[in-house]
Amino acid sequence: MIVVLQPNADKMEVAKLVALIESKNLKIQPIEGQDLTILGLVGDTSILDAKILEANDVVRRVLHVEEPYKKANRLFHPNNSEIKIGDQVIGGEKLAIIAGPCSVESREQITEVAKDVKASGANFLRGGAFKPRTSPYAFQGLGYDGLELLKEARKETGLPVVTELMSTNDLEKFIEDVDVIQIGARNMQNFDLLKELGRIKKPILLKRGLSATIEELLMSAEYIMAGGNENVILCERGIRTFENYTRNTLDLSAIPAIKKLSHLPIIIDPSHATGKWWMVESLAKAAVVAGADGLIIEVHNDPLNALCDGQQSLKPEAFDELMSDIKKLAPIVNRTV
Amino acid sequence: MIVVLQPNADKMEVAKLVALIESKNLKIQPIEGQDLTILGLVGDTSILDAKILEANDVVRRVLHVEEPYKKANRLFHPNNSEIKIGDQVIGGEKLAIIAGPCSVESREQITEVAKDVKASGANFLRGGAFKPRTSPYAFQGLGYDGLELLKEARKETGLPVVTELMSTNDLEKFIEDVDVIQIGARNMQNFDLLKELGRIKKPILLKRGLSATIEELLMSAEYIMAGGNENVILCERGIRTFENYTRNTLDLSAIPAIKKLSHLPIIIDPSHATGKWWMVESLAKAAVVAGADGLIIEVHNDPLNALCDGQQSLKPEAFDELMSDIKKLAPIVNRTV
Amino acid sequence: MIVVLQPNADKMEVAKLVALIESKNLKIQPIEGQDLTILGLVGDTSILDAKILEANDVVRRVLHVEEPYKKANRLFHPNNSEIKIGDQVIGGEKLAIIAGPCSVESREQITEVAKDVKASGANFLRGGAFKPRTSPYAFQGLGYDGLELLKEARKETGLPVVTELMSTNDLEKFIEDVDVIQIGARNMQNFDLLKELGRIKKPILLKRGLSATIEELLMSAEYIMAGGNENVILCERGIRTFENYTRNTLDLSAIPAIKKLSHLPIIIDPSHATGKWWMVESLAKAAVVAGADGLIIEVHNDPLNALCDGQQSLKPEAFDELMSDIKKLAPIVNRTV
Amino acid sequence: MIVVLQPNADKMEVAKLVALIESKNLKIQPIEGQDLTILGLVGDTSILDAKILEANDVVRRVLHVEEPYKKANRLFHPNNSEIKIGDQVIGGEKLAIIAGPCSVESREQITEVAKDVKASGANFLRGGAFKPRTSPYAFQGLGYDGLELLKEARKETGLPVVTELMSTNDLEKFIEDVDVIQIGARNMQNFDLLKELGRIKKPILLKRGLSATIEELLMSAEYIMAGGNENVILCERGIRTFENYTRNTLDLSAIPAIKKLSHLPIIIDPSHATGKWWMVESLAKAAVVAGADGLIIEVHNDPLNALCDGQQSLKPEAFDELMSDIKKLAPIVNRTV
Repeated sequence: MIVVLQPNADKMEVAKLVALIESKNLKIQPIEGQDLTILGLVGDTSILDAKILEANDVVRRVLHVEEPYKKANRLFHPNNSEIKIGDQVIGGEKLAIIAGPCSVESREQITEVAKDVKASGANFLRGGAFKPRTSPYAFQGLGYDGLELLKEARKETGLPVVTELMSTNDLEKFIEDVDVIQIGARNMQNFDLLKELGRIKKPILLKRGLSATIEELLMSAEYIMAGGNENVILCERGIRTFENYTRNTLDLSAIPAIKKLSHLPIIIDPSHATGKWWMVESLAKAAVVAGADGLIIEVHNDPLNALCDGQQSLKPEAFDELMSDIKKLAPIVNRTV
Repeated sequence: MIVVLQPNADKMEVAKLVALIESKNLKIQPIEGQDLTILGLVGDTSILDAKILEANDVVRRVLHVEEPYKKANRLFHPNNSEIKIGDQVIGGEKLAIIAGPCSVESREQITEVAKDVKASGANFLRGGAFKPRTSPYAFQGLGYDGLELLKEARKETGLPVVTELMSTNDLEKFIEDVDVIQIGARNMQNFDLLKELGRIKKPILLKRGLSATIEELLMSAEYIMAGGNENVILCERGIRTFENYTRNTLDLSAIPAIKKLSHLPIIIDPSHATGKWWMVESLAKAAVVAGADGLIIEVHNDPLNALCDGQQSLKPEAFDELMSDIKKLAPIVNRTV
Repeated sequence: MIVVLQPNADKMEVAKLVALIESKNLKIQPIEGQDLTILGLVGDTSILDAKILEANDVVRRVLHVEEPYKKANRLFHPNNSEIKIGDQVIGGEKLAIIAGPCSVESREQITEVAKDVKASGANFLRGGAFKPRTSPYAFQGLGYDGLELLKEARKETGLPVVTELMSTNDLEKFIEDVDVIQIGARNMQNFDLLKELGRIKKPILLKRGLSATIEELLMSAEYIMAGGNENVILCERGIRTFENYTRNTLDLSAIPAIKKLSHLPIIIDPSHATGKWWMVESLAKAAVVAGADGLIIEVHNDPLNALCDGQQSLKPEAFDELMSDIKKLAPIVNRTV
Repeated sequence: MIVVLQPNADKMEVAKLVALIESKNLKIQPIEGQDLTILGLVGDTSILDAKILEANDVVRRVLHVEEPYKKANRLFHPNNSEIKIGDQVIGGEKLAIIAGPCSVESREQITEVAKDVKASGANFLRGGAFKPRTSPYAFQGLGYDGLELLKEARKETGLPVVTELMSTNDLEKFIEDVDVIQIGARNMQNFDLLKELGRIKKPILLKRGLSATIEELLMSAEYIMAGGNENVILCERGIRTFENYTRNTLDLSAIPAIKKLSHLPIIIDPSHATGKWWMVESLAKAAVVAGADGLIIEVHNDPLNALCDGQQSLKPEAFDELMSDIKKLAPIVNRTV
């Protein structure tokens, strides 16, 4: 960490600041520049709240040399993490293809879609039982009944189940029933929830918040990992920008960025990012060749009558065509489906 | 709601769409434009998921005529809402001045600050017992012990207490101990939490999410109100933009906007918005003359040693000077302190 | 265009508004909704300044049914535009691969890079002679001397030259010397410049502004096309968002969006978007499979000593490897290199 | 400047980097941290292109200790700059109140509005002769005829004239006819134009770009000042964010930020920021108490029939009421009108 001092800083105040920093077991190396003086802080600065230093009148600015995350940082964990779920692995050579409807609506719907996506090459089933909806008047999901239907679809197809947890109250049930616990974008910084997830071993699919930086996404992963659960899969699903033709702006540069900064797997959700089914194919293929470890895609057998997000759901036939292209593209970037 | 049709839409498909819409008890009035045809939907469209219509191949776009919120909408509730908290009112002529430290740290700290801010003119005490922190390694608040200290400070000063709730698990305790329950920006769309808040009567201070539009803020208020709790106070605390000199960008235009769209009170948090104590004075005064119903300001008696956010905390003397200016400005915009 | 009226609009004022609209040769079809009344405007509304209607007290909101651009709109021009440059075509099956250094620095540099990128499969040479730089103290380009060097490199390799025009003063020279005139992101709404470009026939590579919506990009294309020059190639080069790990956020969803909305070709610049050379490969490949009509990529033979943007330049060997992958990916999405 | 090295950087490569830096007359002070090593660069780093260092494989990141602007920096110019325009001063105790229509439309219109705003307390007249419009089909201003009408209005009222320059071709005419040359948001990084403005002495009102950081605004001022023209007045007019209820998001925190970072005056344009006339009053008052050096406000005597931006124009009576409030607020923040 680098502390930039004000040009005419009071010496007594600087001495106090130095004493404060040294009391945290950090060493200081000053550099006198042409116009400004800086203090280089050497030691474990992760325990220091950098912002508090800026409360000091003699401090002009604080600069960070190291990333604030440790367990999620590739610097200390050079090899890719591979997350095991049953006989599937996320983060290895094989792509994770997670497909299914936005929300579970009925036994027929979820089972039929599960069979269809499996036939096309998906290796995980998604489907919401608890739905975060902007409007209190919108369909909120089937809840526990939805979980039961997901279990039936899993039994029928063998596909492990990925579904969203919204409340710590349902955690025990999810540990029992679900294969991967999804944390939605709006809960990425629900720190109480993250702490609870650190206490379990179940793999977590952590979606990037709408306005979360890549660093903040990794800090939320760090919350879970610091608690003891290292089975974290990151998911980019579009960020909020000024552009409103698409629901969000899919940030595919997050793929190489996260591969550089972290060892955790990163998968892409083109359905929520764009909010338009006819954009999904194009961006799903782009994600794969950009180096994503997998995709999470909404597929519905009757989008026109879906209870939620039909506008961004592929029909099974369209998904099948997409998978056929992905099977051709994957080997070129050293991946398998 | 307006449905814009594709220029060469299949007539059979349009007929199906019309039937679907009419099955929701809505009437359709078509208008044939120069290049495009639109369908005007008449009736209660709030129950219709507009996005689903866009799943339809014959639909080019859907436009919204009405706001999706009802209870929070000034259209149906022309007078300002006034929220009563003990003998204080938020949303009337008198400004709500909520002041105190970022986090409760000790009996001496919170009581001393409470006395100081009261003496300067604050009529509410703020202080975090449960702290949402980006880093799992940062101070997370004193928890229940913090609530006890807040109660002592209230006893000593008579100031009602505003503090943040992070988990439904603590709700009962907060109903008992706290005067206004604050919901932080990161939980603005924690819908499970919002639903619980709708079941109680305690006033809620709902902070705008970092990337929430004004409409989404009002939709989150609608969640609480739809559940039965109409005591909602909105709070603008800065939104996330590309500018990173400030922690966030304070959106003061939200004040006239919300006054136009809704009857709910709106208060401003310049401390979190800017993240720099020396900016607070300027923006606090601006908020008052722009028409805010109140302010929430961080005040700490020893910012250099604060356990959290010292860089954005005013010292009691600086707060006192600010209040002295606000007392002069308020009457010019027909407010009292 | 749809005009939403205020619920309690004064009838005399509405009558005046109706008269104003009808005086523009537009017909009005009103629809009385449950809470609000709307006026549907039928006719050529492109001549009407919609915003002005909002000056009217009785108007609640104005909604747009049609896009404000005509000549750039696929609605009126269903087939893809193909822009011819010498014996090359942009917008057809063959990808446009535009490669070269950020700025022209010397005869050796530009010629060597030109030969290298041609050998790897590029069909256009890029290189800045006039450089827009944030700092007045930074290298500003070789100017006319740079144009001469570009011409020599073209003579040597046969590659058509793409370079940025910053001022109308240099237009004549560019028409003579250059094959494609690039308009940089910062000049996308330099309307004086756009008007001049409408008067010529030379193909224009129009880069999307840092904070321009897709609609605004198309409106800037419309400026040029309305003037008479239909040879416009669009370029997505990253937009400004809150994420600052990358220089900008590359918006690949702009590819399917623009393909839907417009008939103009769209190419992608991953170098400026990310600002990091090690991200370029991943996103260049993604752009191709997402459906881009081409790429514009910075290649420098000595990035460590480049006078500009070395951090985002590929070395010729890295570019060659990238092209080798692109040659394999292109046929899968029905493209050739 | 601080260069953070990669943890396992090749020593030969580091030695080359060190040699490169030292060849620029900079000294290096290394600090070995716990996990990473940094190089502190001492000397005039403004001539060094920091980004180029990131082209180097051994470099992890570059951090900036100093701001990249010198002439606009308060560090080297502690006192506020005061810009003289005739017998008016911008940047002193007296507020600059610049008012007038969006565009000059006729002799009657501009003269009548000029008289009205002067009577209410404005000390400058604004009015566009050349208008930057998103649509090529919209009214583009009266051009030179507009300048003539502005001169007549100035003659009649004595108010100095502020109007926008869009092209270097009109510069000579503007120097002769105009008192303050306004550079619009879309031209803030039209570097060719900025360079020309550096060669003259006429005061420049430089508007912040829609997606420009405060630092970039100051860098554009630096362009003009580096050329020799130190008469720069900055203007915040709203930035582009995800919120689209308002045209842009007015960033009032730019006022204290710019006051800290720079000695240049800063004025606020609430009309363009919000795009809604009924928001202007609230935010204009807020700007004054936040410490702005002035306001630029659109006033039109017939907004319903304005040729441009009527929706954001105040009527003269509303402007008069606003000024009456501002006259009361100004003294409380030590300003005069």
